[in-house]
Amino acid sequence: MILVLEKGIGQHGEREVLVKLEALGVSGQLGRLYTDTVVVIESDVQTKPTHIFSQIDGVAKVLRIGQSYPKVLEQKESSVKLERVVIGGGAKPIIIAGPCSVEGLDQLLELADGVKSVGAQVLRGGAFKPRTSPYEFCGLQEAGLAYLKEASLETGLPVVSEVMSEKQIEAANDYVDIFQIGARNMYNYELLKEVGRTNKPVLLKRALSATIDEFLYAAEYVMLGGNNQVILCERGIRTFETKTRNTLDLSAVPILKSLTKLPVIVDPSHATGQRKLVRSMSRAAIACGADGLMLEVHQNPSKSISDAEQAISVEDLALINSDLEALYAALQKMDAQAKSTGDAKFKEAVEGQPIEGQLVLSGSAIS
Amino acid sequence: MILVLEKGIGQHGEREVLVKLEALGVSGQLGRLYTDTVVVIESDVQTKPTHIFSQIDGVAKVLRIGQSYPKVLEQKESSVKLERVVIGGGAKPIIIAGPCSVEGLDQLLELADGVKSVGAQVLRGGAFKPRTSPYEFCGLQEAGLAYLKEASLETGLPVVSEVMSEKQIEAANDYVDIFQIGARNMYNYELLKEVGRTNKPVLLKRALSATIDEFLYAAEYVMLGGNNQVILCERGIRTFETKTRNTLDLSAVPILKSLTKLPVIVDPSHATGQRKLVRSMSRAAIACGADGLMLEVHQNPSKSISDAEQAISVEDLALINSDLEALYAALQKMDAQAKSTGDAKFKEAVEGQPIEGQLVLSGSAIS
Amino acid sequence: MILVLEKGIGQHGEREVLVKLEALGVSGQLGRLYTDTVVVIESDVQTKPTHIFSQIDGVAKVLRIGQSYPKVLEQKESSVKLERVVIGGGAKPIIIAGPCSVEGLDQLLELADGVKSVGAQVLRGGAFKPRTSPYEFCGLQEAGLAYLKEASLETGLPVVSEVMSEKQIEAANDYVDIFQIGARNMYNYELLKEVGRTNKPVLLKRALSATIDEFLYAAEYVMLGGNNQVILCERGIRTFETKTRNTLDLSAVPILKSLTKLPVIVDPSHATGQRKLVRSMSRAAIACGADGLMLEVHQNPSKSISDAEQAISVEDLALINSDLEALYAALQKMDAQAKSTGDAKFKEAVEGQPIEGQLVLSGSAIS
Amino acid sequence: MILVLEKGIGQHGEREVLVKLEALGVSGQLGRLYTDTVVVIESDVQTKPTHIFSQIDGVAKVLRIGQSYPKVLEQKESSVKLERVVIGGGAKPIIIAGPCSVEGLDQLLELADGVKSVGAQVLRGGAFKPRTSPYEFCGLQEAGLAYLKEASLETGLPVVSEVMSEKQIEAANDYVDIFQIGARNMYNYELLKEVGRTNKPVLLKRALSATIDEFLYAAEYVMLGGNNQVILCERGIRTFETKTRNTLDLSAVPILKSLTKLPVIVDPSHATGQRKLVRSMSRAAIACGADGLMLEVHQNPSKSISDAEQAISVEDLALINSDLEALYAALQKMDAQAKSTGDAKFKEAVEGQPIEGQLVLSGSAIS
Repeated sequence: MILVLEKGIGQHGEREVLVKLEALGVSGQLGRLYTDTVVVIESDVQTKPTHIFSQIDGVAKVLRIGQSYPKVLEQKESSVKLERVVIGGGAKPIIIAGPCSVEGLDQLLELADGVKSVGAQVLRGGAFKPRTSPYEFCGLQEAGLAYLKEASLETGLPVVSEVMSEKQIEAANDYVDIFQIGARNMYNYELLKEVGRTNKPVLLKRALSATIDEFLYAAEYVMLGGNNQVILCERGIRTFETKTRNTLDLSAVPILKSLTKLPVIVDPSHATGQRKLVRSMSRAAIACGADGLMLEVHQNPSKSISDAEQAISVEDLALINSDLEALYAALQKMDAQAKSTGDAKFKEAVEGQPIEGQLVLSGSAIS
Repeated sequence: MILVLEKGIGQHGEREVLVKLEALGVSGQLGRLYTDTVVVIESDVQTKPTHIFSQIDGVAKVLRIGQSYPKVLEQKESSVKLERVVIGGGAKPIIIAGPCSVEGLDQLLELADGVKSVGAQVLRGGAFKPRTSPYEFCGLQEAGLAYLKEASLETGLPVVSEVMSEKQIEAANDYVDIFQIGARNMYNYELLKEVGRTNKPVLLKRALSATIDEFLYAAEYVMLGGNNQVILCERGIRTFETKTRNTLDLSAVPILKSLTKLPVIVDPSHATGQRKLVRSMSRAAIACGADGLMLEVHQNPSKSISDAEQAISVEDLALINSDLEALYAALQKMDAQAKSTGDAKFKEAVEGQPIEGQLVLSGSAIS
Repeated sequence: MILVLEKGIGQHGEREVLVKLEALGVSGQLGRLYTDTVVVIESDVQTKPTHIFSQIDGVAKVLRIGQSYPKVLEQKESSVKLERVVIGGGAKPIIIAGPCSVEGLDQLLELADGVKSVGAQVLRGGAFKPRTSPYEFCGLQEAGLAYLKEASLETGLPVVSEVMSEKQIEAANDYVDIFQIGARNMYNYELLKEVGRTNKPVLLKRALSATIDEFLYAAEYVMLGGNNQVILCERGIRTFETKTRNTLDLSAVPILKSLTKLPVIVDPSHATGQRKLVRSMSRAAIACGADGLMLEVHQNPSKSISDAEQAISVEDLALINSDLEALYAALQKMDAQAKSTGDAKFKEAVEGQPIEGQLVLSGSAIS
Repeated sequence: MILVLEKGIGQHGEREVLVKLEALGVSGQLGRLYTDTVVVIESDVQTKPTHIFSQIDGVAKVLRIGQSYPKVLEQKESSVKLERVVIGGGAKPIIIAGPCSVEGLDQLLELADGVKSVGAQVLRGGAFKPRTSPYEFCGLQEAGLAYLKEASLETGLPVVSEVMSEKQIEAANDYVDIFQIGARNMYNYELLKEVGRTNKPVLLKRALSATIDEFLYAAEYVMLGGNNQVILCERGIRTFETKTRNTLDLSAVPILKSLTKLPVIVDPSHATGQRKLVRSMSRAAIACGADGLMLEVHQNPSKSISDAEQAISVEDLALINSDLEALYAALQKMDAQAKSTGDAKFKEAVEGQPIEGQLVLSGSAIS
């Protein structure tokens, strides 16, 4: 952290600032940065709020360096483990699949069997559906949860489903194995704190407008409650391109993996919004290191109640699963080879060396 | 609404579709659109969910035309009225001002007096603060609400404050006059439904990534609960430009006013993130027809606990208020003149003729 | 400029860097910035290329502080003067108006008379038209230029028209008074250098994807050739919002004016792409300090050969001109009042105090 | 194409429109679309300019359906062939590698040997460099071209280099094998027409702000001149995310390949702007079907004169090349398997079924 002092503060003023810092238990070192006098603080102040520094007399500006999401950065466990499934930590990438919305019990049971038979390890299904228009189908609510539980018992697949409020967390608690926080609620900090107090894994989707830093701050909110089983999910950001529903930001995968050990999965269904693109983008996601895929699947994709344009069939899922197997095998070989040639330097990118917290200065992007 | 039928559906299939539509109480007309057979439905189906049409056998795609937020479009009342303040409906634009966060009782009382003395009509102040980092100051919570109430009683100014969960709505209910839904929670539909069940006005901010349509769907969520006192607030969208915190989308003001009678205000503090830009953008907002401004003000702006970069002083606010008076007088004259010259056609843009729901076709933007 | 040195460079290495800097005629001061050893260079190195610093052994990274467009920043003349028109420098905002494309001589003469009669001071008209599709009308080429000249002679209005290549500059040189560089060619540095070698004013439009810094670097390219008669034109940037053709970034107006004395105008026609929004956005542009408006006008707007959706009629232009007069009068009063009350501090925003070159640090946006 | 007629046009008016269409050699069919009377034109009018329809009396609006870049869509040849290299058409993906800027003859010769030895098939190197700041290194100009030629003769690698003006095309003509049009000049239609008149392949980069449609229209400009050897290059678009230089839009790869047979390559160096991300994104690009990679390589990456942050070493390139081999082998197997299981339907996505030109209607995105 760098405190930029007010112009003309004088030696006396500078000392005063250092004294006040000491009172906060923080030691800083005076220096000059361009035309400013600054105090550089190297000790760990990540979790101290900015205003206790900015409010010190004589401090004109507070610059934080690096990220202030220590729990995300220092996460030790690199996988989320369910009874029969391991997500992340170098395990083979998993497939989470199922309908956008739970539409009925029969539909779900058939589909759960289907996706399991072609390799899916987790069942997804929306019971509470956030919809842009309040007049669209908003899910079967509690009934949907019960169907998910039944499908889980029948197939042995753990279940993930979205929750959007404290009440829904309570309602879903006995039925689902993983709570999903959707893209629309990534900035809903009260909700993040609530799921952070549960002991179930949380699948956290990146908001349409979220920077990677904001995404990781959201994870920090969950983890602060004591729950460190967070699965990060890239699902496309909002850009000007209209040929896809959103723009899948696959660079986020290696960046996230370089910053944290939390597992990172990709949802090509929502990112592209078109079933014809799902397979290609699934391949790309696996190739750049995703720990899993989240896919919308339906018996009769074009008749899905919600998001029909992006649903794929069980047959399509089988192909994607076999792609995943082939690519995983290729990746294993590639990494083994890299290890044998002692290529430590480049391997970092894949295995998780931090992307440096860059000092960015206005006007400095000379490209 | 246009139903695009499956290729090769045949006359029999076409009739089947029409029969099923009739069973839904909807009448459609067969036609051809480019190489497709379509059924055009002109009767009002705005509030029927899309899937009841898309699931009809033989229907390949459902295209909605126009917006499906009937309550927003058909809103009759063009102002939100508090005891002593009228927002919208052609009234002189109002100023909502106060600190980003309530920092203490004395601070707030002094500031409330200050902003009132220079023309503000509503007091703002955050008690529950959404912060990107969980380690930053998150507001004084209930104590902050009590201080707001006290400031309101002392000054007679109604009070607006943000709520982020059902519990906070309950907590704030006795203390505030207007509930604010912040940009981060615009897609939090459960929360929108909750405030829709209260009888207090709701100040709804546009999300960073929200299209104007999504913004109005959010308003529809509130209004569906029976609460039609919604104030729309443009506060900047997320773009690539980094010289401002967000990009203030002032075109949204006349567009929103052309689509609905709900009042539209502008928050130049959050949009620009820099106090030096607040006055210019306040002028622009008033000039293009905003019904009010929402401004962050502080006794000692650079020492604000939160958002210190964008806070302005009470003296600055006085200048903005006098700008507003001067511009409002000029606008009154301009509109009077337009009326006298019988210029009906162009006046529409300012007074609220709908921007037409455009048929947009992929590949057609020949500019 | 800050040079971040390599970790573990040692005292000897540090001294070597300073010696090499001296050889470049630059003096720097060693310091520490967070965990790095840095050399801070305060002398003027804006026009030295970055690589002469980055290539010094022991330098890991070069951070530029502030903008490196000295000609833009140090521009003395605050207006562009044509024979009968002054743009910028506190003069009353001007109106540049005319058809998107020159469609024929009669059309143009009639329109030139029309726009002049309602207050326009410069005539615009495209002879070389950049079109997304090569099959669309690309302008009358040289004939269009001749018509523009004739219209200029008839009306006394100076003429602005777009050029897209060196050949077109030559072709247009005898016919137009101001060269326009369109948004599509803002990054066409060879073209910028060419118009920089002419002695005619250059109306430079911001590219759809250009940051404000990139926009000013483009101006610097023109000015480097010796031509400092650059008029900056904000015309909308590309965002996710589709209700407008682009998103008009009006905050750019006060920011640009705070960074340079070059005149700044606004083109609401291209920014909004809809004639119904042109008047509101013209008002907003004037209110926030634009030095002029650029507007597409047509006798029969909906029959314009190009950009018919955004063209306005001469009658509409008359209204906008009278708005401009009223707003300018109001602004004059507002500023006079501000001066009389001695409000020096805030006035800066309007009159041109630099928006500070902010030190931005990754992960530091704690909002 | 759909012509929306003016309201109340009447039967006589409708007939007049049809008559005028006939005079243009176009036949249309009257119909109703929602509340409008329309004329649907199914015959091929892609290359007729829009205004000849919009200017017909009684026509209120012209809606184009589908894309109007027939040469791009109908391209027969699916690869670009140089003497020893085939790009696209199902050939093994190629690697184009070399320095950002040609810095000197020795540097280039050494690097050319290096990249060739680890699998690169085309040498890249900038002689004319577009730089945001005019004070940065702008390339060695003609000397750089001569060095490229020499390196090409020594290694047998064909050479690609950027041109930014007609003069540079002439200068480069004897030295380079492929003309590169950079992202900054994708909208520079005069330049596109110029390279369209040459008989060398053109590597066309997507502009930062270009939609996929605009990108393909740019290719159409080149092809209209008779040159159909266009290689499309995705290199990142401009979004709000700042952890990468741009946002690599890999979904563009399968979309482009579904719309045209032109080869599609990816430049992860410029897209990410960080060497640590280049390998991951190279893997992803190959996995989703790219026909090649374009990579910035340097002997001493951090000392590159330009774009040092994104350059990789020759050793890194070797790893990427071996990744490419492994992934290509895996993809070959995956596709063989898909073929053998007769999975025709899904394979389309990978092999090039058009992404449908969607009818998009404002307000209809009910997600």
